[in-house]
Amino acid sequence: MFKSTLSKNVEWGHCDPAKIVFYPNYFIWFDQSSHQLFKNAGVGMEKLIKMYGIIGLPIVDARAEFILPSKFNDLIKITSWISEWKEKSFVIYHEIHNDGEIAVKGSEVRVWAKLHPKNHLLIKTDVIPNELKNNFET
Amino acid sequence: MFKSTLSKNVEWGHCDPAKIVFYPNYFIWFDQSSHQLFKNAGVGMEKLIKMYGIIGLPIVDARAEFILPSKFNDLIKITSWISEWKEKSFVIYHEIHNDGEIAVKGSEVRVWAKLHPKNHLLIKTDVIPNELKNNFET
Amino acid sequence: MFKSTLSKNVEWGHCDPAKIVFYPNYFIWFDQSSHQLFKNAGVGMEKLIKMYGIIGLPIVDARAEFILPSKFNDLIKITSWISEWKEKSFVIYHEIHNDGEIAVKGSEVRVWAKLHPKNHLLIKTDVIPNELKNNFET
Amino acid sequence: MFKSTLSKNVEWGHCDPAKIVFYPNYFIWFDQSSHQLFKNAGVGMEKLIKMYGIIGLPIVDARAEFILPSKFNDLIKITSWISEWKEKSFVIYHEIHNDGEIAVKGSEVRVWAKLHPKNHLLIKTDVIPNELKNNFET
Repeated sequence: MFKSTLSKNVEWGHCDPAKIVFYPNYFIWFDQSSHQLFKNAGVGMEKLIKMYGIIGLPIVDARAEFILPSKFNDLIKITSWISEWKEKSFVIYHEIHNDGEIAVKGSEVRVWAKLHPKNHLLIKTDVIPNELKNNFET
Repeated sequence: MFKSTLSKNVEWGHCDPAKIVFYPNYFIWFDQSSHQLFKNAGVGMEKLIKMYGIIGLPIVDARAEFILPSKFNDLIKITSWISEWKEKSFVIYHEIHNDGEIAVKGSEVRVWAKLHPKNHLLIKTDVIPNELKNNFET
Repeated sequence: MFKSTLSKNVEWGHCDPAKIVFYPNYFIWFDQSSHQLFKNAGVGMEKLIKMYGIIGLPIVDARAEFILPSKFNDLIKITSWISEWKEKSFVIYHEIHNDGEIAVKGSEVRVWAKLHPKNHLLIKTDVIPNELKNNFET
Repeated sequence: MFKSTLSKNVEWGHCDPAKIVFYPNYFIWFDQSSHQLFKNAGVGMEKLIKMYGIIGLPIVDARAEFILPSKFNDLIKITSWISEWKEKSFVIYHEIHNDGEIAVKGSEVRVWAKLHPKNHLLIKTDVIPNELKNNFET
């Protein structure tokens, strides 16, 4: 399974008055790490949009479990991989480690989506091409 | 059950190149709406910290289901309530409506936490006082 | 001179470990207040894009002077107006008050910009139509 | 003069519906680069707080000139240095390059500040110690 890891320094502005990371930042990093996962697999978002006519990879579900807090100046690592392919959607799993310990676990469910052929204000999910999945095998 | 609603205008800077709300913003709004829920119930965060010696209401789990996208200049309403009290934690449920339609559903699990009596670098969850819960009855 | 005021509650996530507003948030609020100024003047961004074929109101300069800090749960008011019209650009001036005291002063310079007629990857500033300015007279 | 450079990938969530960086992000990066400048000079924020009893380096002025827009997936470099020492404040100058071209120029003025000796709700600026400045000579 192809995995990708993004390293981040926890910055002053990521932290709240309790001096720990304000939790929505973890989802910002999940999103960044998902983009990096596709890019590192050779299928960055812009390439996918051009090749397949999708409009992006819209998210339909996101969740996180917060195990240990992270603080200003901590160096964290977000490791991401596709844990499940469904017909028209897939799950990206994320683990954040801080100093060797698991700090956050989470996932995003994203869909393969195109503009609706008859109404361009709507989107329509479509079947994920099999060749795409090959990029995420090891 | 005591509920609280926060209205937000979707701003230019909340939206991404797909011209819809960048999803971590929904968790920022969940957090804001949770704070407003406690404040409207008469037990704002600062009061809780002073009255009970807690360090805040640290989050241990957050999740959201994204049903409909929201766009620049949409007016959305985040309605929040405590859907479950456990011994040392509780669940805040959130529903976001856009133009009368349900757009996002989600929840946060937060714990009642104090500094550890022997090691002030650690925190310790504690039993939620019963009188607190009364503020959220209707 | 037409002025517009935006009220904001300072939220937990706007504040940093020093327990005051993390300063880039003031620029986020300047941007929101600029959009509201145009909307309240009857010429919201989407209308301008449709009526005049501009691509938005790109910013070329932003600055702020921070006079007093604001804290979690403070209610602040951002008042904005156009302080100067130039041929192809204009200055939006912003004052933020907190509890009656001036807390932040700042400005944004924005240009009237269209896609370049010969190369759609470039933009070209253009002369601001006089009738637009009438919307900001009192 | 001691300089420090921070590299950033422009992420999806940094961009707005015009598909360019939403401008307050540049100030977030200025702040991150200022923190890195002090850290690389051997006087990170936490060390300064412990050594000198300051409360941080509060900002009193920030400004930026936006010369070229940056887009999703651009790699940008923020180079920062102290351009001027005053008695109780100093200026950090920032230049952002994108693909070899200057894209943003800006500055922050920050003060050397401690808690007021008689009223801990107030802060008091103080004279910057000379030995601090030595860390920023080359």
